[in-house]
Amino acid sequence: MTDVHSPLIDLDPEAQALLFTDARTANTFTDEPVTDEQLQAIFELAKFPPTAANTQPLRILYVRPGEARTRLVAHMSEGNKAKTASAPMVAVLAADTDFHEFIPQVFPIRPQMRDDLAGKPEAREGMARFNATLQIGYFLLAVRAAGLAAGPMGGFDAAGIDREFFADSSWKTLLVVNIGRPGENAWFPRLPRLDYTDVVRHA
Amino acid sequence: MTDVHSPLIDLDPEAQALLFTDARTANTFTDEPVTDEQLQAIFELAKFPPTAANTQPLRILYVRPGEARTRLVAHMSEGNKAKTASAPMVAVLAADTDFHEFIPQVFPIRPQMRDDLAGKPEAREGMARFNATLQIGYFLLAVRAAGLAAGPMGGFDAAGIDREFFADSSWKTLLVVNIGRPGENAWFPRLPRLDYTDVVRHA
Repeated sequence: MTDVHSPLIDLDPEAQALLFTDARTANTFTDEPVTDEQLQAIFELAKFPPTAANTQPLRILYVRPGEARTRLVAHMSEGNKAKTASAPMVAVLAADTDFHEFIPQVFPIRPQMRDDLAGKPEAREGMARFNATLQIGYFLLAVRAAGLAAGPMGGFDAAGIDREFFADSSWKTLLVVNIGRPGENAWFPRLPRLDYTDVVRHA
Repeated sequence: MTDVHSPLIDLDPEAQALLFTDARTANTFTDEPVTDEQLQAIFELAKFPPTAANTQPLRILYVRPGEARTRLVAHMSEGNKAKTASAPMVAVLAADTDFHEFIPQVFPIRPQMRDDLAGKPEAREGMARFNATLQIGYFLLAVRAAGLAAGPMGGFDAAGIDREFFADSSWKTLLVVNIGRPGENAWFPRLPRLDYTDVVRHA
């Protein structure tokens, strides 16, 4: 276990390892299915961390093995096709550009925000993409919290996936993520992280 | 403690509460300072979860109370000025559109990606914003892991902050986050979350 061992971190070392320090992006998976109950348990954690005005624009399409999976694989880049085809579960993570329809329910302190945003599709798309991407960060850690490995993939034709699965909806594909138990040779060697001094400035 | 109590979640209940189920966005803070050691401990967790090609484009400007804080507050929206002025620590979270300069170091398996991206500023900006936003999700949970509360704020003039603090650099402001120990009346009532069936589809 790569334990940060910092007395300044309240999160216990096992949890640090599960979510941050030991967890890795998996490239192969076992055949063990991911159940609906596991998917719902992941959601029940991932739903809590914050979004702007509590708008929660992240949407999830789960694609099990079968005909729909084959249609999804066709839109993945070459290097991602095999693992997307074989993963026990694949999540297409999307931003709902019509998230404002839920505002009276999720932000009852300012329900008129729905109507303010109704005529501003560009502002809505920016908000949807930013806040759904934040939520993808929460989601990936919630997958790990469930003891599963996530394999996020940026290589795909987003417009193609949108046409294939979201033609009738306001969802826009952001990321495709394989989910399951890690299989044989699941990990590449850990790549280096930037130093604190490369990333942080003080003013 | 609002414990999910799901046997399908490996993360222990205290860690669930600390990061997801009990943690809240704070609107007031005590005077207790946030130390450099705490900031570095947060980074040492937040740096690990994945980004595309390990590019890690998130950058952080920490603004302590003082002259720089006053300059930052001027770019916050009215409703955010008072809490930004009084928070023990404020982080300006930004995307580095020149993240590609680090590719030979962070993605040594394909160092030529640096030169491929050098002539593609639009593609770089999209990658930088998406992956840095993912990392903001990780960062906010890492702040909570350190026992601190985060107060992310979307209401500010991003172009103004960029001119004020990043005129000489390739950093683009994404979010401003107050950090500290929760103060008096720190929490608004928890707003409702969307239901699983509103967010998830199956294919």
